[in-house]
Amino acid sequence: MTELAPHALEALIVDWGDVPTVTDIKVVRRRSRDFFWYSPILNEQLSGKSAEVLVIPRDEVDVVRVAAACARHRVPLTVRAGGTGNYGQAVPLAGGVLLDITELSAIEWVKPGVIRVGVGAKMNAIDAELQASGWELRMHPSTKRTATIGGFVAGGSGGIGSVNYGGLREPGNILAARVVTMEETPRIIELRGDAAQKVNRAYGTTGIITALEMPLAPAWRWIDVVVVFDSFMEAVEFGYEVALADGIVKKLLSPVTWPLPSYFGALKTYCPDGKSILIAMIAEPSLESFKNLLGSRGEITLETATDDSPGQVPLYEYTWNHTTLQVLKADRSVTYLQCLYPHDRLLQKVDDMRQMFPDEVLQHLEFIRFNGHVTCSGLPVVRFTDAARLNEIIRRHEESEVSIANPHVYTVEDGSRYKRVDADQLGFKHEIDPYGLLNPGKMRSFVGRSR
Amino acid sequence: MTELAPHALEALIVDWGDVPTVTDIKVVRRRSRDFFWYSPILNEQLSGKSAEVLVIPRDEVDVVRVAAACARHRVPLTVRAGGTGNYGQAVPLAGGVLLDITELSAIEWVKPGVIRVGVGAKMNAIDAELQASGWELRMHPSTKRTATIGGFVAGGSGGIGSVNYGGLREPGNILAARVVTMEETPRIIELRGDAAQKVNRAYGTTGIITALEMPLAPAWRWIDVVVVFDSFMEAVEFGYEVALADGIVKKLLSPVTWPLPSYFGALKTYCPDGKSILIAMIAEPSLESFKNLLGSRGEITLETATDDSPGQVPLYEYTWNHTTLQVLKADRSVTYLQCLYPHDRLLQKVDDMRQMFPDEVLQHLEFIRFNGHVTCSGLPVVRFTDAARLNEIIRRHEESEVSIANPHVYTVEDGSRYKRVDADQLGFKHEIDPYGLLNPGKMRSFVGRSR
Repeated sequence: MTELAPHALEALIVDWGDVPTVTDIKVVRRRSRDFFWYSPILNEQLSGKSAEVLVIPRDEVDVVRVAAACARHRVPLTVRAGGTGNYGQAVPLAGGVLLDITELSAIEWVKPGVIRVGVGAKMNAIDAELQASGWELRMHPSTKRTATIGGFVAGGSGGIGSVNYGGLREPGNILAARVVTMEETPRIIELRGDAAQKVNRAYGTTGIITALEMPLAPAWRWIDVVVVFDSFMEAVEFGYEVALADGIVKKLLSPVTWPLPSYFGALKTYCPDGKSILIAMIAEPSLESFKNLLGSRGEITLETATDDSPGQVPLYEYTWNHTTLQVLKADRSVTYLQCLYPHDRLLQKVDDMRQMFPDEVLQHLEFIRFNGHVTCSGLPVVRFTDAARLNEIIRRHEESEVSIANPHVYTVEDGSRYKRVDADQLGFKHEIDPYGLLNPGKMRSFVGRSR
Repeated sequence: MTELAPHALEALIVDWGDVPTVTDIKVVRRRSRDFFWYSPILNEQLSGKSAEVLVIPRDEVDVVRVAAACARHRVPLTVRAGGTGNYGQAVPLAGGVLLDITELSAIEWVKPGVIRVGVGAKMNAIDAELQASGWELRMHPSTKRTATIGGFVAGGSGGIGSVNYGGLREPGNILAARVVTMEETPRIIELRGDAAQKVNRAYGTTGIITALEMPLAPAWRWIDVVVVFDSFMEAVEFGYEVALADGIVKKLLSPVTWPLPSYFGALKTYCPDGKSILIAMIAEPSLESFKNLLGSRGEITLETATDDSPGQVPLYEYTWNHTTLQVLKADRSVTYLQCLYPHDRLLQKVDDMRQMFPDEVLQHLEFIRFNGHVTCSGLPVVRFTDAARLNEIIRRHEESEVSIANPHVYTVEDGSRYKRVDADQLGFKHEIDPYGLLNPGKMRSFVGRSR
């Protein structure tokens, strides 16, 4: 795809009328990026990519006008929200329009256990709003303070809270999604139940989400805890016990091997040299049981109420992919992987991987539930040499039955553990984006009608 | 142990002063029973057993006076509450005193996620009281409407809610217990954390519990659901999927084979002939996801808010050991077993057991979490012939790696899967009941000092 001719761009903008539009190319370029630079490979592939115009709809009516205009003019459209993704989800590969969805942030309603909210609402704003009524989102990424609920659904998978509820893909974790189709006369479609999975981790290729209905969890008073252990495997073993202890209410269990905590800035005070740690969020009434289970195996060096209000740094900003970020702040030569360990041989496989790459792949795990079983997602920090070596590390994980969701690729298919896109998503894309204009190049199995 | 001489009984009663006392032997005999008659074997062994006097302390001070008197006079004491147990927990084997603890029923305090309550509080009264503040007990037996929290802790194991929290034995499910020792000068001991397990399922042999601190669950609006399936295994398979679906909030999942529903009285209307059913309690906001997962595999015949107020029959009164009771109402020739299935070969083992005894052992399962894994407790209804055949059925289950907690024995040890008492419990009993006066004969490993 080539760049739009100036007159074509002009005609497009005229077509969508008074929808707020930014044509300053410096701004458009800056907003066309996300956190893909965690991957040196994606950094090379994506760094020059940009949209040509940025549009910021004020409401769903504006979204419909923009979608109609793009369909009529056959111009690609990539949706962007907080831009906190790591796979270039929000990076336009084929130029065109960048649609900033963050103005659609109103809460439509809250019922016990359910919220209906605009796709662009920030997750920390949602939780702050819910607090008084005793609810919170079931799960959120470590980027909660800048990420939106729509970006999480369209480009994420799970996070803090997945130790209880599994990932977004588990039945019941996305109740409904409202999408605008990419057609000359756009339709508005309500996807409920299983059907809502059509937009899950599709990078915005399967419709422009405008609203989401999400299940809620009862809110607890969470306590941020750091526990220090002599060895990484002791941190893992204790974390596993807590994960399996259904009587202990938790939201986060993250074993982190030394020397990663040496990069942890403000948290370093609580991380003695040479020690591995477990970062945890425990419900206050379960804290006594947590300590009881710990006994004298590890030492608690920090215990403080979780606080993610402005100016505070909650412990979860040292977990999930923030662990990588903490290291990247000091050392740009590292990158990371995303592993899924088999639940029935968890400790053995973690130990195997640790011994296979003792200094090159620095272990950091996240306890999760997956298909109803307790297991670990691994987000190790990898000392990067080159793409060949990275692929070799991936291959050796897969040989050892540790699945990899490769974060060094930008298509939906290549980043999944199955290397394919969900058949429902592909079929649905044909229905709602016949010209293949939504984030083109991200769903590579899709071949659209001629434009 | 022989019966107390009339003057000895008189002296004992004088010793404890004005603590309310019942000597009418008809009343004492009636109150010395529990629901052990579900077992034809226990029915024979325990039917004549009775205390000689009933005492009803008004508060903990009264409990101390009674304990002191019994210790000084070396008279056995058996604690009783709702009397809903099935193993003769509350049946005095050696006569003596029956202590009715139900007056100690006050709620001391409620904090977010925790309640401190008198041991004799009925569980339905606790939940009714908690409702306004949005909390409920994490789990309760099917006898919730008559059982007490103390009886559940001292003689139970798990129940409705254990699909989320596991059993009472899991870390964090009993926070603390306050006990009065059986000594001439009784002490009052607070057991916290692990230590509280010393009173768990010890049948009142390890101290007289006066108060409990229990963790709470966020209360949901629960929906009672009956789903009908063509075959039992389909009910089991769907129940298993729901149990594993961490995004679907539930409290109860009970597959029941035909013909058991034919005994289900008022519920019979919703149970077509020849069909097996799944009884479920689903949180209202998860009901749509539950139905979505079901698809067209089964038919929902009942869907109504759980209501256990007076005059109503909640669905949980057809589950756990109430399933057996529903059948016993019409057919006194049946009894039951308590099975624990291995979590990693669940469906296969359930099918094996079903085929091994197709008409003799009528399957009824309860999905639970056990050590962090989803599995099933089985409470099949057994067509009873004689003890030898029952033991043969038990043996064949155990040979097939399906553990049995035998409900046809009355000692703590024989009823456990390990055929032994917890070492901590035994050691603690030596400390707090040196003369072996608490419910003697129930902890058979215990040999007391000479009286």
